[in-house]
Amino acid sequence: MLIVQKFGGTSVANLERIRAVGERVRKTKEEGHDVVVVLSAPAGETDQLLKLANEISESPDPRECDSLISLGEQKNIALLGLYLHSKQVPCISLTAAQIPILSNKDHGKARILHIVPDRIRKELKSGKIVILPGFQGITDEGDTTTLGRGGSDTSAVAFAAALKADLCEIYTDVDGVYTADPRVVENPKLLKKISYEEMMELADSGAKVLQTRSVEVAAKHRVPLKVRSSFNDKPGTEVVAENETLEKILVAGVTLNTQEAKVAIRRIPSEAGVLAKFFAPLAEAGINVDMIVENLSKDGTTDLAFTVSKEDLRKTLKLAEGVAKRLGAGKVEAASDIAKISIVGLGMRTHAGVAYQIFKILADLGVTVQMVSTSEIKVSLVVAIDDAKRAVKGLHQAFGLDRSE
Amino acid sequence: MLIVQKFGGTSVANLERIRAVGERVRKTKEEGHDVVVVLSAPAGETDQLLKLANEISESPDPRECDSLISLGEQKNIALLGLYLHSKQVPCISLTAAQIPILSNKDHGKARILHIVPDRIRKELKSGKIVILPGFQGITDEGDTTTLGRGGSDTSAVAFAAALKADLCEIYTDVDGVYTADPRVVENPKLLKKISYEEMMELADSGAKVLQTRSVEVAAKHRVPLKVRSSFNDKPGTEVVAENETLEKILVAGVTLNTQEAKVAIRRIPSEAGVLAKFFAPLAEAGINVDMIVENLSKDGTTDLAFTVSKEDLRKTLKLAEGVAKRLGAGKVEAASDIAKISIVGLGMRTHAGVAYQIFKILADLGVTVQMVSTSEIKVSLVVAIDDAKRAVKGLHQAFGLDRSE
Repeated sequence: MLIVQKFGGTSVANLERIRAVGERVRKTKEEGHDVVVVLSAPAGETDQLLKLANEISESPDPRECDSLISLGEQKNIALLGLYLHSKQVPCISLTAAQIPILSNKDHGKARILHIVPDRIRKELKSGKIVILPGFQGITDEGDTTTLGRGGSDTSAVAFAAALKADLCEIYTDVDGVYTADPRVVENPKLLKKISYEEMMELADSGAKVLQTRSVEVAAKHRVPLKVRSSFNDKPGTEVVAENETLEKILVAGVTLNTQEAKVAIRRIPSEAGVLAKFFAPLAEAGINVDMIVENLSKDGTTDLAFTVSKEDLRKTLKLAEGVAKRLGAGKVEAASDIAKISIVGLGMRTHAGVAYQIFKILADLGVTVQMVSTSEIKVSLVVAIDDAKRAVKGLHQAFGLDRSE
Repeated sequence: MLIVQKFGGTSVANLERIRAVGERVRKTKEEGHDVVVVLSAPAGETDQLLKLANEISESPDPRECDSLISLGEQKNIALLGLYLHSKQVPCISLTAAQIPILSNKDHGKARILHIVPDRIRKELKSGKIVILPGFQGITDEGDTTTLGRGGSDTSAVAFAAALKADLCEIYTDVDGVYTADPRVVENPKLLKKISYEEMMELADSGAKVLQTRSVEVAAKHRVPLKVRSSFNDKPGTEVVAENETLEKILVAGVTLNTQEAKVAIRRIPSEAGVLAKFFAPLAEAGINVDMIVENLSKDGTTDLAFTVSKEDLRKTLKLAEGVAKRLGAGKVEAASDIAKISIVGLGMRTHAGVAYQIFKILADLGVTVQMVSTSEIKVSLVVAIDDAKRAVKGLHQAFGLDRSE
């Protein structure tokens, strides 16, 4: 088999951890597989480099900033290369330029356009373990780009897709994908399998175990994905196409996101394109809008509410107030003492009444729902931040996700 | 003018120093010059990376090691780029691959083969300050190489030569080139000008202010060189061709090197090629031999002595003992409690008796000379390490190099 193994920041945080990674990939190689290793920067190093950039410049130049913050992964691939060489394991580390992995020019959140697999294939064919940096690419002009937070997962899946790998293993510091965050719920279940679709919704809703984009790419190219711990040998969670899912469960997981803030505008005189008018300046400013809820009244005005990340709130308010004033809308209200809860499950597609169940559970808990939006396999809710943990625990238990021990 | 400005490790050790460098190059640019900046890694960072390499591997793979230890310069060029951008100064940092600067494949001590000046010229023409990494290159296969200790000086001079720059300024943490190391001699003189030849001999004899190879390249391409402090605005020392030297002085400087050890082999049965037999295995093992002294006796045997760096002594002894045994020579003796003193000056070429003066001064000081070798403009001596500082001070004073204040 050709296996891509990706190791996240805590799995490559220091020399001891890098040695452990070395032993794991060596074992995989000795079992007769071709191995491509994708590494993150040591935990915290990218943030530290970013801090330097922000210390020396108020608004860091994107090209220079990417050159700087891509160095952590380059350090780690060289270190793993040194370790494996010292153990007489044939290997080679390749930088983004040496591969090459081409991206667009969108510095800081670039998208992978094309991976040229020839060099990697050649090195694999000669019996080497190939060590690659996550999180980065180069433009067609040879400038370094980075893929944004969590981009190493996406790199790994993209390499697996380009090489038509048989498996892409994502090694992290948890045992796999849980039905809820163990820091919020005491006894969440570890999922043996989960569908790409559920995984995407979970990742998108704040489950930090995999980056959403990486699951999208995996689903698109049908890359068999596995999430495992680099600290033990447990089997982890398989992320697979829907028809392979063994357990038909109603709800796969409940997530909590406390990083968002809510903005609401009341009584907007309704006209065609009014939503576009609100969101155009936000898109231009690079502000990511998450939940959007709109409700048109019979009196010809409409109420709009949406969530953005807390750090974007001030900028968002300023822009939204400008538009509201021009349109003669009511006051713009904001709240950052909120949390978003998402309930994800393929079962929702076929089981009616899941939303009702959710509202009933929350009502019994005395939790007020401030916003709701639904997708095919997900219900997202905004509640007061003080109610959030209680709500997550209650939902988790009510949907039978607590591990019985 | 086109000016290349190179800043060493202490000049770019932290963000505060990088800001100071930014202001200096900005000023140079505002004076109407085209500016190319060459940066070292932050002081100590390359050593730290090398330490990591040696911790994770007993004999680090050269290719992976170069990938690792080249990261310090890459960090600094991005940081300076960020700073200048933040001050609205047009600039661009380029990596070794983006320039490109091509070297041979001799990892860890690569030699620059060719610099393609087109990209740098294009960026200069568009009004940008161009920021380049010292110490590194790439092979024609795109692998990163490093040029060895002090290689950033050589990079700077090579860029200056390739671009036909009008001036190459080497910024460091001392005010320029002194007649002796201020840590050894209380009041050495700062040289206003020095010839390439003298500078080469001084550098080669342990003056750390410039790397020997960089002076060689500067002399070969007649690159006007200036050594200055990045911590003040003093004019520094100009390194120029001989006919430009204004001050005709007998001795330009006295250096001290305590990093070498002496090896002596007595009573070697003399035959043609006997020296080659001793030095062949050393050359093969990559051991650099510095001073070599040989003296053939009338009885048909010869005495040989040479110096190597202390860290190579053990390996050297083993190899030399092997050869000595095969040739039926006497015992191989070694001493590491020695120091090498060099006296350098163009004046030696025309003034007879400088060697005599040196021996007389040392005799008056009661210092025993263990070894002597001479070149056209240099006399090198080996003395006991306990005599070394006294000898340097005495020579410095006797040749009138003490600053009179």
